[in-house]
Amino acid sequence: MKDLNAIFSPSSIAVIGASSREGSVGQSIFRNLLYGRYTGVLYPVNPKARSINGVRCYPTVAEVPDPFDLAILIIPAPACPQTLRECVARGAKGAVIISAGFKEIGGEGVALEEEVKAVAREAGVALVGPNCLGVINTDPAARVNASFAVGMPAPGSIAFISQSGALCTSVLDYAKGLDFGFSKFISIGNKADVNELDLLRYLHHDPETRVILMYLEDLANGYEFIQAARAITSGEGEDRKPIIAIKSGTTAQGAKAASSHTGSLASSDEVYDAIFTQAGILRVERIEDLFDLALGFSQQPLPRGRRVAIVTNAGGPGIMATDACIRYGLELAHLEEATVAELKRHLPPTSNFNNPVDVIGDAKADRYEAALNAVIHDPGVDGLIVILTPQSMTEVTETARKVVEAEKASDKPVLANFMGIVDVSAGVEVLKQHDVPHFMFPESAAKTLAAMVRYTEWCNRPRTTVMLFQDLDREAAGKAIAAAEGEGRSHMPELEALEVFRAYRLPTLPSRLATTADEALEAAEGMGYPVVLKVVSADIVHKLDVGGVAVGLENPTEMLNAWIKMQKSLKEKAPGARVLGINVQKMAPKGLEMIVGVNRNPKFGPVLMFGLGGTYVEALQDVTFRLCPIRELGAHHMIEQIRASRILGPFRGKRAKDKRAMAEIIMRTSQLVMDFPQIRELDMNPVFLYEEGEGAMVADARIILGPAE
Amino acid sequence: MKDLNAIFSPSSIAVIGASSREGSVGQSIFRNLLYGRYTGVLYPVNPKARSINGVRCYPTVAEVPDPFDLAILIIPAPACPQTLRECVARGAKGAVIISAGFKEIGGEGVALEEEVKAVAREAGVALVGPNCLGVINTDPAARVNASFAVGMPAPGSIAFISQSGALCTSVLDYAKGLDFGFSKFISIGNKADVNELDLLRYLHHDPETRVILMYLEDLANGYEFIQAARAITSGEGEDRKPIIAIKSGTTAQGAKAASSHTGSLASSDEVYDAIFTQAGILRVERIEDLFDLALGFSQQPLPRGRRVAIVTNAGGPGIMATDACIRYGLELAHLEEATVAELKRHLPPTSNFNNPVDVIGDAKADRYEAALNAVIHDPGVDGLIVILTPQSMTEVTETARKVVEAEKASDKPVLANFMGIVDVSAGVEVLKQHDVPHFMFPESAAKTLAAMVRYTEWCNRPRTTVMLFQDLDREAAGKAIAAAEGEGRSHMPELEALEVFRAYRLPTLPSRLATTADEALEAAEGMGYPVVLKVVSADIVHKLDVGGVAVGLENPTEMLNAWIKMQKSLKEKAPGARVLGINVQKMAPKGLEMIVGVNRNPKFGPVLMFGLGGTYVEALQDVTFRLCPIRELGAHHMIEQIRASRILGPFRGKRAKDKRAMAEIIMRTSQLVMDFPQIRELDMNPVFLYEEGEGAMVADARIILGPAE
Repeated sequence: MKDLNAIFSPSSIAVIGASSREGSVGQSIFRNLLYGRYTGVLYPVNPKARSINGVRCYPTVAEVPDPFDLAILIIPAPACPQTLRECVARGAKGAVIISAGFKEIGGEGVALEEEVKAVAREAGVALVGPNCLGVINTDPAARVNASFAVGMPAPGSIAFISQSGALCTSVLDYAKGLDFGFSKFISIGNKADVNELDLLRYLHHDPETRVILMYLEDLANGYEFIQAARAITSGEGEDRKPIIAIKSGTTAQGAKAASSHTGSLASSDEVYDAIFTQAGILRVERIEDLFDLALGFSQQPLPRGRRVAIVTNAGGPGIMATDACIRYGLELAHLEEATVAELKRHLPPTSNFNNPVDVIGDAKADRYEAALNAVIHDPGVDGLIVILTPQSMTEVTETARKVVEAEKASDKPVLANFMGIVDVSAGVEVLKQHDVPHFMFPESAAKTLAAMVRYTEWCNRPRTTVMLFQDLDREAAGKAIAAAEGEGRSHMPELEALEVFRAYRLPTLPSRLATTADEALEAAEGMGYPVVLKVVSADIVHKLDVGGVAVGLENPTEMLNAWIKMQKSLKEKAPGARVLGINVQKMAPKGLEMIVGVNRNPKFGPVLMFGLGGTYVEALQDVTFRLCPIRELGAHHMIEQIRASRILGPFRGKRAKDKRAMAEIIMRTSQLVMDFPQIRELDMNPVFLYEEGEGAMVADARIILGPAE
Repeated sequence: MKDLNAIFSPSSIAVIGASSREGSVGQSIFRNLLYGRYTGVLYPVNPKARSINGVRCYPTVAEVPDPFDLAILIIPAPACPQTLRECVARGAKGAVIISAGFKEIGGEGVALEEEVKAVAREAGVALVGPNCLGVINTDPAARVNASFAVGMPAPGSIAFISQSGALCTSVLDYAKGLDFGFSKFISIGNKADVNELDLLRYLHHDPETRVILMYLEDLANGYEFIQAARAITSGEGEDRKPIIAIKSGTTAQGAKAASSHTGSLASSDEVYDAIFTQAGILRVERIEDLFDLALGFSQQPLPRGRRVAIVTNAGGPGIMATDACIRYGLELAHLEEATVAELKRHLPPTSNFNNPVDVIGDAKADRYEAALNAVIHDPGVDGLIVILTPQSMTEVTETARKVVEAEKASDKPVLANFMGIVDVSAGVEVLKQHDVPHFMFPESAAKTLAAMVRYTEWCNRPRTTVMLFQDLDREAAGKAIAAAEGEGRSHMPELEALEVFRAYRLPTLPSRLATTADEALEAAEGMGYPVVLKVVSADIVHKLDVGGVAVGLENPTEMLNAWIKMQKSLKEKAPGARVLGINVQKMAPKGLEMIVGVNRNPKFGPVLMFGLGGTYVEALQDVTFRLCPIRELGAHHMIEQIRASRILGPFRGKRAKDKRAMAEIIMRTSQLVMDFPQIRELDMNPVFLYEEGEGAMVADARIILGPAE
């Protein structure tokens, strides 16, 4: 783990390329550091200046009079590697390269980036950038604004990591307008050395940071990221921090046209979804949501459950808030009789005493106070949304004070929505001053509370591990794979794939390759009727089209007839094909058709897909993804997560499906692809899923070997 | 159609209940009228005052010296009916009852509301309210602020109709903060007389109004509303106005537990969705969206298509905007070679010359100008989103001017998103002054443009009619229904339902009731094997459970065996059941299982549901709804709209399904339920849908008679 203290809390900084020229980046950064009241020593370095903003300047790094912790480089890219070496020689433990002209311009830039990266790695220096806006730490003990942002953001408990430098300036400007403070603010640029993972690990133990926001365009790695982020999102108490992320590029047109079901559905965005899900990261789609959620998480305790109460002075907005709560997955709390009685004591008879509680348009602050106190102490309420519309008699400021009092007197989250802009502004100001999160629209408050509930549920989830099954024959699977590899084949057709699956004790049908009718008869007798015949030939892609499949053969006569018919049809319709034989397979009773597939992502490793199989798989795209290895809970979550999960539970008088068997197939498949990195793709479609206790059966399968593409 | 001119443009107003008391509603309204510079004559009426705000006051309506057009009533509810009569006597053509205490309090209030309604209806007076905030018309020729809102909103081209009075104050306050103007602003309260439909008809021809916003909690009627709203949303040119609506209460818990598939899925919200879809109304879920869309529609021309270009000075936000555009259904325009060449002439080499066009962080206004001019004239571009992040060298104000110039020089919609709040504010001000819509976040701009595209598509849709099939035997259907009614039965089992369907030339299977094995044999010979046997008995609900179904009977022997087995099983498992006979039915080849259902809504009439049938219907809820009668285009839209529609097109080498036959089934069913209001529910599940040219087949069906519930 890299030591980022030299980045965030250096005791001295050399600013190489600091400048006096108004409007230059070198001037912006130096000014930000100096006027931002950095608590250590600044050494501007510039051969052309004697001083910058009144501070003694040094012509070269070598001439800086003291060793320094952090180097900021604002010089042309080609000069960076050598300068960085000089900084290392002067004791620098950290560096931020602001300059562009590296990987992002290709060619020579790529080589330059490799070079600075190598220098940093070798010296054990933590390097942020290149091509970034810089780094900010608002902690009063450090006050480092090593960025060319417009000024210093207010201190706060929110850290922001951005892969887009340009976005940083906008986020800081939004923050200014919204009175938002930050603990740390990091533009990670090209991530030559320090990446989001290093920063997450640092922020995990940063006492100033309570909530972590990220804007990402890609991730450096998958499973390691999941492990690190999980540790942060699921720690105990103070050790736990919510992470809220936007991953852009969700609709990139560049998704390769893949060859299998899995490939064609596993666009990279679904992989990122899987990563965020497995890491416990709250993914949002809009910048607005980033701010809304940060506000809620940074200022309020987590709700214990999903039961929300709404207090409003207007019916319509109460209904809208209710709609939004339900839509985002909250439940409306059912108020206790005692609470309703208390409300009746204080509110006029035309009020609504049930949730959403309507104190009516002419309510003054006292009525809000009574309602808030009654509702917030109801044991059936996990969180509160307070809505106010500015009617003529509404006491906006005084009501805001009552909301603050209620919030302070309780350990439940309280979110406010004073609807309007101008007339409600004085009240909103009071809420802000006292850290009661205020949202401009009821929908934002509901969405935020719902995200907090999801996070509570993540924190409270049962902890499971990756099950490692011991009852399997890894050697046999390896042999089958090696055999195909030995023949230089990447495609393992069904019979071979089944061998591998059988070795991993995945439920497969008895199958035997027959080259003569007698062998087929013998095979069928051995496994018992009914059976299926399928031609085995690498030259035949669509078996059905050439009469190469016969199903439902109930007895020897039917099988023999089918055999003869198939031979004849193959001769006619696939005359040149080299036929290895006919696969005689026990016919499975038909169950619910599911699909399990794996596609190895070149960056993130094997990604497992599970969902509704058969005809519907592509049309309905009712599938979900996880990176392997998959934990026990993860496997069960996949099953619960698809839209069709209702069919799998007890459903319209039918017994539930064997979800446990399905989860086991997912976990064993995960183990298989982790054990054999040669497996590039794997498809089981359909897997017949039967009723509880009756298991599942892989009814068709194939494996493709080779490196990930 | 009611004449609402007396409401919006009265030449004189009597304010009954006007008051001098500070803080009273009577004072608020009178002050709003007076200081809002109403252009006509005001007559305050109050027995206790000589004058109000300097205006001569009259003790009673009778003593008002002149006749007047509009009466505003701010007096206790019980006094309203008599006072309204007096107003009528004085020539009032319109009335607004502000007072509460009517239907919303139940009991006596209901009677009072009926009474004022009767007075208004009898006199032909247009009555708004009771229990409302009032009515505002900002037109300088009238300047009527007959409301107790806080002041008068700015004039503008947006009309707002709200069923929540309290929401009005918030909407006005949002509008104040967002510099939003209104043409008309109407709080419709209890809708005793004037409802949303009357207002829509009035606003249709109001020259001041370009866009209509609505907040609704319910609708007075369904098909009439659809007809009226369609006429407004789909007129030609100036005669056409977009309607944007929020319907709250989407998640009401009160949805009745219905008895059929249709009922259980057709929650009232889906009915409202159907109404809005059929009316061409853009439904939004959040108040924020209401403002965003109104901004776009009121200030920009409609895009001709869905191809959007993005110009940005920051890569990350460009990606985010792209994501949002695609997510909301837009396409990224492919720029012409000439455009790219033009961009290359003006932009530095590190720019992105393809869409999204990135002019890079150091872009000044001239670079934006060049990029905007090149892109907006590209014939492949239908609309433009301009993004700006405030970098240190960004010329925010000057760039805003260039955006304005580009917008004025083109007939394509231009939407801006200057990302931030404080540093971008001067530019945002320029955009606002020149009516270029500005959105705080890129996602809002994308969502708005997408809504405008949807509206364009609505306007350009081919116009179809409700097809009235002539080839059917209405009399035969009527007879079958009358027979069931005659026996006092509400349930029409399959055989009877099939008779009705056959009369409407819905594709049904040959079926015959057999009471003896000989009759069954004869029936089967007549229709040809394979056949199915199903027991017919009102006492047996689950036929399968008692062995009352046998399928796939290929010949007389199989049929006879099945017959004998069934008789035996029924004796054992359903000993008391009165069995009418066995239905011998031709077995349909299995097609894709669809469902068509109708449920008669007590308020809106028959609602037809179409979607994926069979096992999946409830689990996947892949269904869509429309009010009957259904036009030809509507039927086809239903088929395109379900998630599974991909399966219906040519799909993975399979031929397309017979969508035309499916649409015909939808339309004939619609005609059937319009012809026979006695049909309360109707279910065809499954309907087997075959490949193109091979039609469809209703494989199971039932009808329930009775009044809507």
